[in-house]
Amino acid sequence: MAAVEGTTKKKVIIDTDPGIGSPLTEPLFDGADDAMAIFVALRSPEMEVLGLTTTFGNVHTALATRNALHLHRKLRIASFVHGSDGLGNQDFPPPATKPVDQSAAAFLVEQANLYPGQVTVVALGPLTNLALAVKFDPSFPKKIGQIIILGGAYSVNGNVNPAAEANIFGDPDAADIVFTCGADILAVGLNITHQVVLTDADREKLEQCDSKYARYLCKIMGIYFDYHKDAYFIKGVYLHDPTTLIAAVNPSPLTYTEGVVRVQTVGLTKGLTVFDNTKKRYGEITAWTGMPTVKVAVTVDASAVVELMMQRLMTDD
Amino acid sequence: MAAVEGTTKKKVIIDTDPGIGSPLTEPLFDGADDAMAIFVALRSPEMEVLGLTTTFGNVHTALATRNALHLHRKLRIASFVHGSDGLGNQDFPPPATKPVDQSAAAFLVEQANLYPGQVTVVALGPLTNLALAVKFDPSFPKKIGQIIILGGAYSVNGNVNPAAEANIFGDPDAADIVFTCGADILAVGLNITHQVVLTDADREKLEQCDSKYARYLCKIMGIYFDYHKDAYFIKGVYLHDPTTLIAAVNPSPLTYTEGVVRVQTVGLTKGLTVFDNTKKRYGEITAWTGMPTVKVAVTVDASAVVELMMQRLMTDD
Repeated sequence: MAAVEGTTKKKVIIDTDPGIGSPLTEPLFDGADDAMAIFVALRSPEMEVLGLTTTFGNVHTALATRNALHLHRKLRIASFVHGSDGLGNQDFPPPATKPVDQSAAAFLVEQANLYPGQVTVVALGPLTNLALAVKFDPSFPKKIGQIIILGGAYSVNGNVNPAAEANIFGDPDAADIVFTCGADILAVGLNITHQVVLTDADREKLEQCDSKYARYLCKIMGIYFDYHKDAYFIKGVYLHDPTTLIAAVNPSPLTYTEGVVRVQTVGLTKGLTVFDNTKKRYGEITAWTGMPTVKVAVTVDASAVVELMMQRLMTDD
Repeated sequence: MAAVEGTTKKKVIIDTDPGIGSPLTEPLFDGADDAMAIFVALRSPEMEVLGLTTTFGNVHTALATRNALHLHRKLRIASFVHGSDGLGNQDFPPPATKPVDQSAAAFLVEQANLYPGQVTVVALGPLTNLALAVKFDPSFPKKIGQIIILGGAYSVNGNVNPAAEANIFGDPDAADIVFTCGADILAVGLNITHQVVLTDADREKLEQCDSKYARYLCKIMGIYFDYHKDAYFIKGVYLHDPTTLIAAVNPSPLTYTEGVVRVQTVGLTKGLTVFDNTKKRYGEITAWTGMPTVKVAVTVDASAVVELMMQRLMTDD
């Protein structure tokens, strides 16, 4: 990876909730999904991972931080980690690396100021840390390069309930702040990630290859497969986090449309994302009128995403 | 129409808001849309219209009632009417027919009890009257034959704002009561009606034919065309109300799927309908869990709807 070191690399911060995931519906299980995304990032020479920041879910942040550290230790790559055994119940020993004593939001603001316009945040959990960064530093939205958000369900049902996707549901107020903050945002929702499936056959390939990353993932992936069979009646797992991460590595498998996203923060559809497709000129001022726009992914070449992910995971240094 | 009089006719009550329509975005303009639906109903030998009930919108009910009476007088057909010049600003004189001194909800309950399982309600406005009927008589949902609702935006943007469709927005609490009352319900939303367009060419055909119904509609339709050009950038008008009415005459142009619909009643997505497509088994009990299902229209043969509507409007007795 040192070969492409330098200014050509994209500076990335991954804001994640490893081992926490969807607060209501996917407790503990999607650590595998986060782990895959983090592994892909660290195996992608196009990226320099400035740090991982952790965010809360239903399980407390300390556990998420421990899991993030654990993933790092596995890879023996020095990096920042700010911040139940969510990693497939493998009961790994506590990791040796220590978390950094700086809040995630402060780190996000610091890095945005250090490299204005150059930092990409890949947000794989609730948007609390990013909302705090916006509150701490009103110029953060303009200083951050891009924010790629795994969050929302655009014209499809949610995964916490029919209205809400888990990451947005985890902190809807924060999500509404971030979506309307004016930053360059690409949102990747369930309409996209439910098209990107790692099949049993893909899993076998990972199991049979020589990569330590692949073998590690297979170890923690079993319970995630069981969950999908039970909840979605599918044989395979949705690649929510890796798909979002790959949008930072190589956005070409995705197409998007641009408009305003607002988040419902109360009531039975709390956490629901409503995207204005701007096909109608409304007669009155609405909550969407004049708000900053974001990009929302609308199509994905799923096989291209899976192929790129497999390629990154199946090769060792 | 007397030729097919008798038990083979479907008993229909039309709950409508002529000249009111969408409270925020389509004030006054969609009287033409309601009028078309009512005309199609009265020109359809498959139906016996037991009565019209009127419902409120942003304009008060007295005006809606006057407009409904006016439409009846034009047609010289005795019928019940329970209940701005919404009819294209033609400033028609006050109608001669008198409204009935019975509440719409009481009439709905009365007719459901009189003809249990046989009455179809076509609901073209906010669902206030139907919710009151459910409250007045808890057995109403089982006694009413079918309720066909023009309401909601399923996986598409609303028309009042990006979240909400006008009829549901008009009384979201009532809508949530009706959708979950257990009656046999078919919902026709903007995802359907935005596919059914009366074009300029269709309008010319109506203008040039001999039917008094068609000529009357053309008279009140101009402002409705202007509105669509301005708000939706289209040449033509959406046939919201006629499409819903035609679902009662002949449902074959529509296909539907079945599931639970809940309505958001507060906040910025107030009036939003969320349909659970039941493709996921949620881990926790949600607001959708165990609630009665409804049918939601998902596809429409738009040309078949327009053709049937034109056919009914272009022939006099």
